[in-house]
Amino acid sequence: MDLWFTEKQLTEGTEGATVCLSVRIKTVLYREKSEYQEIAVFDTYEFGRMLVLDGIIQLTEADEFMYHEMLAHVPLCAHPAPERVLVVGGGDGGTVREICKHPGVRQVVLAELDPAVVAVSRAYFPGLNTGFADPRVEINYINGIDFVNSVREAFDVIIVDSPDPLGPAADLFGAKFYRGVSRALRPGGIMVAQCESPFLNRGLIRQVADHIRQAFPLFRYYLGPVPTYPGGLWGYAAGSKEHEPCQPGNPFIPSPTRYYTPEIQRCAFTLPPFVQSIFT
Amino acid sequence: MDLWFTEKQLTEGTEGATVCLSVRIKTVLYREKSEYQEIAVFDTYEFGRMLVLDGIIQLTEADEFMYHEMLAHVPLCAHPAPERVLVVGGGDGGTVREICKHPGVRQVVLAELDPAVVAVSRAYFPGLNTGFADPRVEINYINGIDFVNSVREAFDVIIVDSPDPLGPAADLFGAKFYRGVSRALRPGGIMVAQCESPFLNRGLIRQVADHIRQAFPLFRYYLGPVPTYPGGLWGYAAGSKEHEPCQPGNPFIPSPTRYYTPEIQRCAFTLPPFVQSIFT
Repeated sequence: MDLWFTEKQLTEGTEGATVCLSVRIKTVLYREKSEYQEIAVFDTYEFGRMLVLDGIIQLTEADEFMYHEMLAHVPLCAHPAPERVLVVGGGDGGTVREICKHPGVRQVVLAELDPAVVAVSRAYFPGLNTGFADPRVEINYINGIDFVNSVREAFDVIIVDSPDPLGPAADLFGAKFYRGVSRALRPGGIMVAQCESPFLNRGLIRQVADHIRQAFPLFRYYLGPVPTYPGGLWGYAAGSKEHEPCQPGNPFIPSPTRYYTPEIQRCAFTLPPFVQSIFT
Repeated sequence: MDLWFTEKQLTEGTEGATVCLSVRIKTVLYREKSEYQEIAVFDTYEFGRMLVLDGIIQLTEADEFMYHEMLAHVPLCAHPAPERVLVVGGGDGGTVREICKHPGVRQVVLAELDPAVVAVSRAYFPGLNTGFADPRVEINYINGIDFVNSVREAFDVIIVDSPDPLGPAADLFGAKFYRGVSRALRPGGIMVAQCESPFLNRGLIRQVADHIRQAFPLFRYYLGPVPTYPGGLWGYAAGSKEHEPCQPGNPFIPSPTRYYTPEIQRCAFTLPPFVQSIFT
């Protein structure tokens, strides 16, 4: 049987989808509507198991390491000694798994809106959910914005592992949220947020840059590949109170990794002119 | 009307296509069978005009700069003073356009098998064909392997701008071809070849590495994004007789560029562990 999942990729300045990525499916492992979204897990021929939320590919077993390693290790290695870490979103567990590779981290708080995402990770993604069993990890089923606004100077690193800015997740790309993130960080704190495709989402990235610059002394943008995301090249936005995000100032080097190295961290901030021009 | 072009992406170890990229089309500008292949030019909503050969996307106006700049400027800037340059394939003109930005280059020879590709570039790709009018450029309609084997110590840089290794182009990925390229290069010469996706074509890349190592003292592999190629992250294989390909040893910096800079050149050779592991 020839079964395919197709993601319709919406980009700026066009009405309706103009690009689609289709992935051939062996089996549909799970498909349910949670309180918040439609969740599907497919077993694919090319990428192993794949998590899809509201029709958008969130991760595949084959390439999720590129995304989760760059989202987690860049801020954790830029901070000289991170102890308390907050993940907003990230219910699939991939970011938490990477954070748990840092022995200096004493507490990892996950603020995930949808308990069903965590349950699906526990049931279908053995390679992603390993951090959930770590005694340092605390899972809160809560709106990330509400959680961030409920704390003051509580975390050394905050990682925003959000879906695309559609529906409720749109507020995670707004100015008010980043001011809250800044207040929730301790002195010397660093935040990073997944920040879309520098090829396809330039207007949004420029907005996020403006918001982060208003809330933090340092804004930086960095890049890494994610083959199953639109455009294949993904961006991450960093805001920092003091430490330079592109410099690994933490003496600890996470291991094992398949994408991240300290040299990769330095190079990820070396932006080509077509990306630099987003910010000027 | 909802008109779409779909590329069926073939990857290693799978039978038939397992991933497809679909691009919404405004109009079909050209579609003919040449002596060698089926050639199509589409006007797309997302990527401007797009050239398709035998069902495979060769370039789009929106992202071709990433590919052509990395293919041309890396070897031309690694060589301290390149004067004579050969392009094998590359009938669309994008690589020749980038080479022509180097004032020190005195001759550019294009060895393209199919005159129809050059004609289509002249007719439909005004942003790509600009180099064809440069008096330093000489176009030969010839099999690239035959041309390479017909010359000795003739070029400072040879750039292999080939299609995927299917059908006749497969020989451009073979050991014999790289030995011929080495003979066709002057002392101090450098070659680069487009070399597929390090995420999807790992076996092929390993083979090419072995072939180039047999023909050259230095082998290097480097990376850059190309959103409309499978996986979005593309690789380039370099063989060098003397000069280190990752170091821009040429005092000239090409301009204007939208992807290439000397810093990008250095970083493109910083390989993540999952790519390093292809070669060990």
